[in-house]
Amino acid sequence: MADAAFQRCINPACGAEFDCGQAIFKCPQCGDLLDAQYDWDRVAVPDKLSEFGKRWATRDRRLDLSGVWRFRELLDFCPDEHKVTIGEGQTILQQNCAIAEHLGMKPDALHLQYEGLNPSGSFKDNGMTAAFSHAMMVGATSCACASTGNTSASVALYAHSCGLKCTVFIGSGRIAFGKLSQAMDYGAQTIQIAGDFDDCMRQVQAVCTELGLYLLNSLNPFRLEGQKTIMYRIIEALGWEAPDWIVVPGGNLGNSSAFGKAFLELKQLGLIDRVPRLAIVNATGADTLTDLVNNKKLVWNGGNVDQRIIDDYYADLTARHFSPHTCASAIEISRPVNLKKCLRAIDVCDGVVLAVTDEEICDAKALIGKYGLGCEPASAATIAGLKHLLARGTVAKDDRVACVLTGHALKDPNVTVNYHKDRLGEFSNAPIEVPNDLAEIIKLIR
Amino acid sequence: MADAAFQRCINPACGAEFDCGQAIFKCPQCGDLLDAQYDWDRVAVPDKLSEFGKRWATRDRRLDLSGVWRFRELLDFCPDEHKVTIGEGQTILQQNCAIAEHLGMKPDALHLQYEGLNPSGSFKDNGMTAAFSHAMMVGATSCACASTGNTSASVALYAHSCGLKCTVFIGSGRIAFGKLSQAMDYGAQTIQIAGDFDDCMRQVQAVCTELGLYLLNSLNPFRLEGQKTIMYRIIEALGWEAPDWIVVPGGNLGNSSAFGKAFLELKQLGLIDRVPRLAIVNATGADTLTDLVNNKKLVWNGGNVDQRIIDDYYADLTARHFSPHTCASAIEISRPVNLKKCLRAIDVCDGVVLAVTDEEICDAKALIGKYGLGCEPASAATIAGLKHLLARGTVAKDDRVACVLTGHALKDPNVTVNYHKDRLGEFSNAPIEVPNDLAEIIKLIR
Ligand SMILES: [Zn+2]
Ligand SMILES: [Zn+2]
Repeated sequence: MADAAFQRCINPACGAEFDCGQAIFKCPQCGDLLDAQYDWDRVAVPDKLSEFGKRWATRDRRLDLSGVWRFRELLDFCPDEHKVTIGEGQTILQQNCAIAEHLGMKPDALHLQYEGLNPSGSFKDNGMTAAFSHAMMVGATSCACASTGNTSASVALYAHSCGLKCTVFIGSGRIAFGKLSQAMDYGAQTIQIAGDFDDCMRQVQAVCTELGLYLLNSLNPFRLEGQKTIMYRIIEALGWEAPDWIVVPGGNLGNSSAFGKAFLELKQLGLIDRVPRLAIVNATGADTLTDLVNNKKLVWNGGNVDQRIIDDYYADLTARHFSPHTCASAIEISRPVNLKKCLRAIDVCDGVVLAVTDEEICDAKALIGKYGLGCEPASAATIAGLKHLLARGTVAKDDRVACVLTGHALKDPNVTVNYHKDRLGEFSNAPIEVPNDLAEIIKLIR
Repeated sequence: MADAAFQRCINPACGAEFDCGQAIFKCPQCGDLLDAQYDWDRVAVPDKLSEFGKRWATRDRRLDLSGVWRFRELLDFCPDEHKVTIGEGQTILQQNCAIAEHLGMKPDALHLQYEGLNPSGSFKDNGMTAAFSHAMMVGATSCACASTGNTSASVALYAHSCGLKCTVFIGSGRIAFGKLSQAMDYGAQTIQIAGDFDDCMRQVQAVCTELGLYLLNSLNPFRLEGQKTIMYRIIEALGWEAPDWIVVPGGNLGNSSAFGKAFLELKQLGLIDRVPRLAIVNATGADTLTDLVNNKKLVWNGGNVDQRIIDDYYADLTARHFSPHTCASAIEISRPVNLKKCLRAIDVCDGVVLAVTDEEICDAKALIGKYGLGCEPASAATIAGLKHLLARGTVAKDDRVACVLTGHALKDPNVTVNYHKDRLGEFSNAPIEVPNDLAEIIKLIR
């Protein structure tokens, strides 16, 4: 029943509603964020979440093989025939006793949700499969995004799969080609605009409006619908029970926003008894959320967010010519697009926010790698943050914790190489040179 | 019935047999390759292959979630309790109409088996899950390999998972750190021996013998047992029917050897009616197999391979100081370890061998990327080779073809970046610079 879905402005003073047949993404009346919403009485949600689990078994139904679409009744904003899938979200929650013990936790308490094995190598595919389904529904034939990272890789991959022409916009300055390699590989056209990222964003929006391109930017509420399923998979692996804590890196705040919405809806539907707490981890070099929530006391307040606090904060960033800086490039963002939705998630999930240093991120990344999951730096902010939360007693040693590892280590091999080769941290693991002599080699290994 | 398995020398003049409880890997009597063999009368192989398909459904049985071990009766060389899995081989055959049409094939004829979504990013995990299960069976506590590429990544990952200490040996000379990044990340110790790769291999073998380390080199017959399952997944996706052609890159020839063994066994067991033909594709800069088979007429000959032809060829390589060279680093090998087993596969599958240029490989890689699958250069040798085979009429336009794409594009982003950025080929897709001006940008996109 895709027509039970609509878009609604998150600002309660506005509350404007729009159908899903439009690609608008920003409230035309007040400029605030839009949400996908459902008239749940008209959606055939199974009585029990365990019904979803059974679908994993069927290989002959296209949508059941997707880790996103096998939960389709919970994000049913478009008819099945428009739903796009390339096998995203076939990811599984993994218990990690070794890291748990290293952190001083109960061995069975720590779980990692590794999204690096998605087709494009990051969690973004969960959102793009949903956004591109929406693009197909509204009849798009061409699409665009402004990104040099995981977003461009995922957009280019889905655009191919849907037969959409795809243009990736980047600003001028030195191009980090390694990060663009996937978008180029997947056949996207890359256009480099002489200007900074803000110029670039402005032009992309103008071009998309002018030419009717479907814009896959972070405002897109349907991306968040897809990202909700990361939480469904986590609770599925825990026997359809929420863990005590979800820990997630904080950049543009799409994930934390989506996770909060997922639990809010499951609670409203009576499908879970309680929601987990949410910990969102910034890098200290890009800690807008931490600063706004912990120091400026910015809160959701039933949707009546104090916009002045945000405006003042951003004005100060501008005045200081502040540029975010962290080795965790996926969360190197100082004006998070989904800020307000994230405040709602913090409200729903009794969330906490904190920031960790690049050094802590790199050590945590090496720890996670050592114990079996190669992840990009941003992903490791979760374990670095968890360490703080355990030290403070916010998280108890026997709390059930699920950390979301957002991307594959091969997304950014340089961070890995430098950390180990240049012996930058606790877990550095540099090559050892030895003469071509058996006795010497044996001495080294024994 | 793991005790129905044994190792046997592939040289029929020797034919020595050994039980699987030993880590020997090379015939102690004649020095030839060993094979894992089974007394099939004592193995409970299902009557119909379709029985294996059902296991995909079960998520509560550890081994059924592995794309290798859900076929366990077909590689049952060790008891279940020793079998190691990290979720390898959850890969699916994908039809690709766009590439088929580009090649002038019938649109539904071309299938790609993309192994890049294995945990370490390459097909190697199929073999390592089997080899490490053997390592656990023989009680290994420490392991080693000599590699700078996909092997080291996979070995380091499984070593962690099994709790084995892991040492990766590399030769001296400039280290390609990008390729080592995964092994370092997964916590392996890297030892750089002052010497070339041959010195390195010699020392590794000596160290492993001396200290009782489990050696994960290409001789290991159990790796090939795991790699057989890539074929089981392909025929599963085709309704348990063999395609007309399997196309695979040729490096150390482990894959082609394993594929031939897989079909030989299935045929002997009466589980398939016919075997597919096999096309093995070298790079022209590393074309030992092509030269030996096509020009020197080297053949399996019931196991009585003419060793002189090989010895003369290698002596000539040595005399010419020949070093293989191709951008497809995963197949940059001039003395393929599994040469003789590959000759058997060619015999079983009526195989053909050919070589393609780096230019053809890069164009094919871009074509595959453009149509949705980011792969490393070696993988693309398959499509480049298929193009030749179609042109020659060896493969017909409506033959059902399955190409094995061995590794993820992020394994080697430099090849991707250079190809596109430097406009090296037919599908190059370099960024376009444009002024910060809407009209100019629109002109570009329209
Ligand atoms: Zn509004
Ligand atoms: Zn022998």
